[in-house]
Order: sequence, then C-alpha cells, then structure tokens
Amino acid sequence: MITMLSDFGYKDAYVAVMKGVMASIAPGEITCDLTHAVPPHDILAARFNLMMAYPYFPKGTVHLAVADPGVGSARRAIALQCVDGFLVGPDNGLFSGVLQRSPALIAIALTNPRYWRTAQPSNTFHGRDIFAPVAAHLAKGVSIHELGDRIDPATLVEPVLPPFSRGNEVREDDASDASVLATGSLQYIDGFGNLISNISADAVPEGPWQVMLETLTGDRFISGIKFYDGVDAQALLALVGSHGWIEIACNQGSAAKALAATVGMRLSLRQI
Amino acid sequence: MITMLSDFGYKDAYVAVMKGVMASIAPGEITCDLTHAVPPHDILAARFNLMMAYPYFPKGTVHLAVADPGVGSARRAIALQCVDGFLVGPDNGLFSGVLQRSPALIAIALTNPRYWRTAQPSNTFHGRDIFAPVAAHLAKGVSIHELGDRIDPATLVEPVLPPFSRGNEVREDDASDASVLATGSLQYIDGFGNLISNISADAVPEGPWQVMLETLTGDRFISGIKFYDGVDAQALLALVGSHGWIEIACNQGSAAKALAATVGMRLSLRQI
Amino acid sequence: MITMLSDFGYKDAYVAVMKGVMASIAPGEITCDLTHAVPPHDILAARFNLMMAYPYFPKGTVHLAVADPGVGSARRAIALQCVDGFLVGPDNGLFSGVLQRSPALIAIALTNPRYWRTAQPSNTFHGRDIFAPVAAHLAKGVSIHELGDRIDPATLVEPVLPPFSRGNEVREDDASDASVLATGSLQYIDGFGNLISNISADAVPEGPWQVMLETLTGDRFISGIKFYDGVDAQALLALVGSHGWIEIACNQGSAAKALAATVGMRLSLRQI
Repeated sequence: MITMLSDFGYKDAYVAVMKGVMASIAPGEITCDLTHAVPPHDILAARFNLMMAYPYFPKGTVHLAVADPGVGSARRAIALQCVDGFLVGPDNGLFSGVLQRSPALIAIALTNPRYWRTAQPSNTFHGRDIFAPVAAHLAKGVSIHELGDRIDPATLVEPVLPPFSRGNEVREDDASDASVLATGSLQYIDGFGNLISNISADAVPEGPWQVMLETLTGDRFISGIKFYDGVDAQALLALVGSHGWIEIACNQGSAAKALAATVGMRLSLRQI
Repeated sequence: MITMLSDFGYKDAYVAVMKGVMASIAPGEITCDLTHAVPPHDILAARFNLMMAYPYFPKGTVHLAVADPGVGSARRAIALQCVDGFLVGPDNGLFSGVLQRSPALIAIALTNPRYWRTAQPSNTFHGRDIFAPVAAHLAKGVSIHELGDRIDPATLVEPVLPPFSRGNEVREDDASDASVLATGSLQYIDGFGNLISNISADAVPEGPWQVMLETLTGDRFISGIKFYDGVDAQALLALVGSHGWIEIACNQGSAAKALAATVGMRLSLRQI
Repeated sequence: MITMLSDFGYKDAYVAVMKGVMASIAPGEITCDLTHAVPPHDILAARFNLMMAYPYFPKGTVHLAVADPGVGSARRAIALQCVDGFLVGPDNGLFSGVLQRSPALIAIALTNPRYWRTAQPSNTFHGRDIFAPVAAHLAKGVSIHELGDRIDPATLVEPVLPPFSRGNEVREDDASDASVLATGSLQYIDGFGNLISNISADAVPEGPWQVMLETLTGDRFISGIKFYDGVDAQALLALVGSHGWIEIACNQGSAAKALAATVGMRLSLRQI
C-alpha cells in the first residue's frame, strides 16, 4: 500500500500523474490519499497530517509526501525506513513529526537515477519524476539500499517552526506558577476550525483542568472537558483530541474563527 | 467493497486514518469515497447522498457513513443488513433514506468491543475506533450477529426533517385544487445548485406539467421539460432528475442562487 | 485500470454512483481520479488535464471523461482506441488534446445498448448510464467493436477554443520581428495560478529568452529561467513546465492573480 500527501490540491491532475507513474511500475498496488489540500508549501501542515495518519497504516506501507518549496534546488530527496513503514519525499522537515515517535532506522539520499522515471528529471515536478517511481519500487519490494547513498538520520533537516516553545517544557515565566503543568503552542488548525496544540495528553491531570491561550486580544481561559455532550452550542472547550494532543474546539462552530487563532499561538495547560 | 461517506472534508487526513485502520484489518479491500464534503453535522445531506448512491453498488457492499453530531453521547452505533448490502454508522437518521426503499433485515447495536480498534474508543472519533474496524470486519466476512446486540429496526432514529410535508401527500390547502398532483419540499441542493425535491418521478403526468416553488419572494411557477436541449441559457426548468426525484435546475446556471432556495422549501407538482 | 475525469465536483456522490456501476460490471478494477473539479461544462480544462495525465498511465488504461454540456442532445457518445489506451465520453472536443499526440486508431459511436446500464438512459446522466458501464466493459476486455458503429475519426468534434492563434505559428503582425520565435495563447490556468501556454518546449532557444504576454493593462515581458532557485518571492518568471509547455509562474504566489490572466490570452516567445 502507498499513501500520498501533497500540496497539489484537487483542481488539477498532478496527483493523478503520479498515480499513473506508480501504476506503470507497480500495477495493482492500492494507493490511499492522506490529503492533497495542504496549503501550498505548508510543511508544518503536511508534517502534522502525516504524523497523525502514519500509525494507523499496516506495517510496510510506503508513505509518499510532497510539499516541496525547494524543488529544483539543492535540497535532498530521501527515503527513510522506520519500524513500521517507509517515508519518501524531500528532506525539508516534512517527516519530523513521524520521526519524533518512530525514528528512522535507515536513511537514503535518492541518488540512483535507475529508480527515477527519467535520468533527466523536471526541475519542478520531482513528485512525478523521482518520488512516485521510488515509492512504487519500494512498494514492489526493491531494497531501500538500492535507491542511493546512505546518509546519517541525524543530518535530516528540522522543520522551521513558528517562534514558540516546543514540546512540553514549562516556560520560564510560567515556571513560578505551580498551576501550570505544561506549555506549548498550536501546531495545526483542522478543517473544522479545531485548534490542535503540541501538548500531549500525558500532561493532563486527573482532576479539573483548563488551558490558557494567548490570543491577540488577550489571554483566554478555556475549561477542559471529557465529552461534548451537554456543552452549549458555540461554547469553547478544551479536550484531549483523538490524535492524542490537547485541542481547543467550539461546539457546532469553529474555534479558529471564534478566537482568531493561528498556528504558533502559545498556550498553557493548568490545573484548577 | 467498502464505500465511505462523511462530513470530515478533504483538508485533513481524518478519512485516511479510517482507511488505514480498515487496511490493517482487511488488506486489499477496495474503498470508494461517496463524498466527504457533507456540511458538518448535516445529517440530511449525508442521508440524501447515501440514498442516491446505494442502489448502484454491488450486492454485499459495506457502506460506512459518519456524520455524527452525537459522537460521545448516548446515541447508538449500529450496523444494518439490507437485501443488497450493509450499513455502518451512528443511529441518527443517516440511513433512513436507504431504508425507505430497502428495509433493514437485521439491525445490530455495535456493543462488542472485540471488533473495535480499541476497547477504550476516543470520545470524538468513533469513525476511526468503532465504525471503520466494524466495516472492515463485515467486508472480511464476519457475521453481523457477532458485532453486538440485536435491536428492533422499528426503534431506529428518524431524521429530524425541516418543517415540511413529507412524501407525496397532498397538502390540505392544496386539496381543493384539482391541478395539484403532489406536494413536497426540497430535500437536497447539489453542487451545481440543482434543487432536488422529495416528489417522486411516479407522480409526473403524461401531459404538460409545472412545479410551484414557494420562495421567500413569492410563488414561482416553473415548467417541466424532458430535455435541456433547446432551453435558453440561465432559464429555470423542472425535470425528473437522474435520481428519480423532481428537480429544479437552471440551464448553465445555479437554480439555488437564482431562487435563493434552501432545503425544506415547499413545492407542488401541477398539471397544466 | 480506469481513470475518471469530470466536472461533477466533490460535494455530491455523482462520481461514486459511476464507480458503483463500474464495480458491478468489473469488480476489483482499480479506478484513479484525474480530477472532478473541472469547472462545470469547461471542456478546455477537461481537455488539458486529460492530455497532461494520459501519457503516464499504463498501456491499456481506460480513460473515462465527462464534461458534457450537450448531454441529452444529439451529440455522439464515443469510445476511441489509441496506441496506449482507450478514451470514453461525449464527442465534444474533450479528447482532442490527447489525439493531437496520439491519434485514434479506432473510433466507435456508443450505439449498442447492450453495454449501457439500461436501454432507457437518463437524459441528464450519461456518465452513469452509458459511459461508466462502457468503460467497465472495455476494462474487462470487451472488444471496442462490440460497443457500436464504427465512425471516421476525422469526423470527431473539434473543441471551440477562445479566439486566439493556435499552435506555434507566428502571428502576421509578429512575422517581421526576428526576435519572435513562436506565438500562442494560454490554454490552462492551474490551481497554483500558473499560466500554461500552448507553446511547446521545442520552441525554446539555447540562449536567453523571454515571453511577452498581452494582458488587459498592456504587454508584459517576463524572463525565461531554468530554476526557481534564487528567484525573489512574488517575482514573475517563465519556464518550461513539467508538462512540456511554456508556463508563466509567480514564485510563492499566483501568476493568474498578479497578471489578471485568463485562458485565451495571447503570448509570444522571444529571444533576447
């Protein structure tokens, strides 16, 4: 099985071109679209969706991801082997979310043109000319070592994140506040307008809790709940999302609109 | 074969997560997206699209549908066996369109966690944790009786329809008008702006006919035709749609915009 | 393998209905969506996407395409056999892009109702009732000659193009200008706002070159480059697109917006 994620959108046949290339190499292989509505060049949105979907696919799945502002430049094209599957795409931080939980066992720079569609790839469409054929060959059973030169996983590019504290570390100015359990920021806003933070479910206490989101119009405190049931329409709420991160939602509405929220906005988890 | 319908949209990888779960249980099974652009929580739009597509799929197809405002509440999760296929999703009226034409032979409440993804399902994503795994097990051949407790199909939830007369019954105030053959209302507005009523093709007479739509700016009479051919651009027309319902369209335009129409608006079929 | 292209959009289950029909005839056949976001009745956009994707699919692929303003009128329904695959859809110019590079070896009018879904097809949905079943039968191995009457490929409808010079012929008023290598016009604007001309890569010289686009606010000269790398953000540039046509793009932006460009706008390729 091959999954596909890109910022190519649904208007044009670009994604289909990649599927045609793959079907020519690995006929009968099933492809699964993660999403192709990643905003153009939005590596963080691509990274989040791939990280969220990755754990649910069968062992051995090949994940092909293309959000590639550096296409045609010197950025590396890579294939990675993790415990449960393969990752193929540009080396620009796209895979860092998956790798945080499932490190790369083997990393390869895609330097062997034998597994490209053509030895003269286009300067603008490596998805078609390099990544799709490589993904199809991997799915067909070609060894990852055949695809090019081994590289050190430690040299993979880290994504440039918006200026916010990463992970669950407590901010210095919150360090003196005993009620603050963790701080972080918004890492993704989904199609429903849910605000997905990078504070993990593990940080949520047994007792009552809330989050404080630092919005443009001031700090907003939002209560943590377990169920939507019984919440008023249009009410804001915080909960542990299905993906395992703390999320701010608006019952039957969009939290993104209600709070004018953007990726990178800071928040903290607090016990009450 | 498994079809999928949801209100999850195309921006995020939520649908793909469900496909990953299904591929892990039933590898190689082909999935077919009905649509994932159902407006959030719009049970009526989900119901219509499922009802329209259902008859065209092969016998034994599993139809997985999730538009689920009550997720995490006490609403039941169900699987239904009809003559030609299976339905899996929340018990909220989503399936009532299909069932109107093809009653449920067996109805099961999905209470057996053995066929869930986990015994501790998320409060917000039963699509991933209950419905997708159950659909995959059904497609793989698991007996529907294994999935939980048998329930009475008569107890399935009916959808809350907008306030309009249902079916083809003649309204009281139209009863004295001999030209009125049937009354009904708009049950769906499609992506082209076509207005799809709930008056069946069976009610259309041999001779000339028209429909009267009760719009916000007054009653509009629209002539029934058999072919688009010869109709002026931007002209309004009524016809029997390919789905078998009377439909109001605008040649090369949007009837929804031209008439400021919304689901639930009343109309009547009249002979001329 | 069957590819599908249409102007049906992603909101409704119309495309899925066609997939259900095909799955009933040719179970297990894999379908690949080219795109269903072709603007309603936009034969030129459908033509371009099909032409672009066609060469990348395996030999024998069946390409089903429906953008069909003439449905229900006297326009012919056709199937074509080319060297590398089959084309199925209305005879309205949709296939002319593919045929320009890969002529039809056999052309058939779909007059044999035995391969339709029903002998009484709907007046508005030939995709479901004629094209999808015919495509599935072709994919299953039915001979194209079974599908209806042989017709002369020379009688196939040519698309009505916007009023511009076609191909690479030099315009009369540019004929005296030695720097003009070719003239043409915009044939497609993609989802990124890239302007794709109908001037082929073959016309690009070894040395420096530029294009002149005749916009509504005057002639604009845009330099040809080989790589995006090093180009300023929001800068306009001309390059050979991955599809083999000269393309005008805007680095990290939309050339369509920056230039208020529309399909049919004239341009010329010039050496510097």
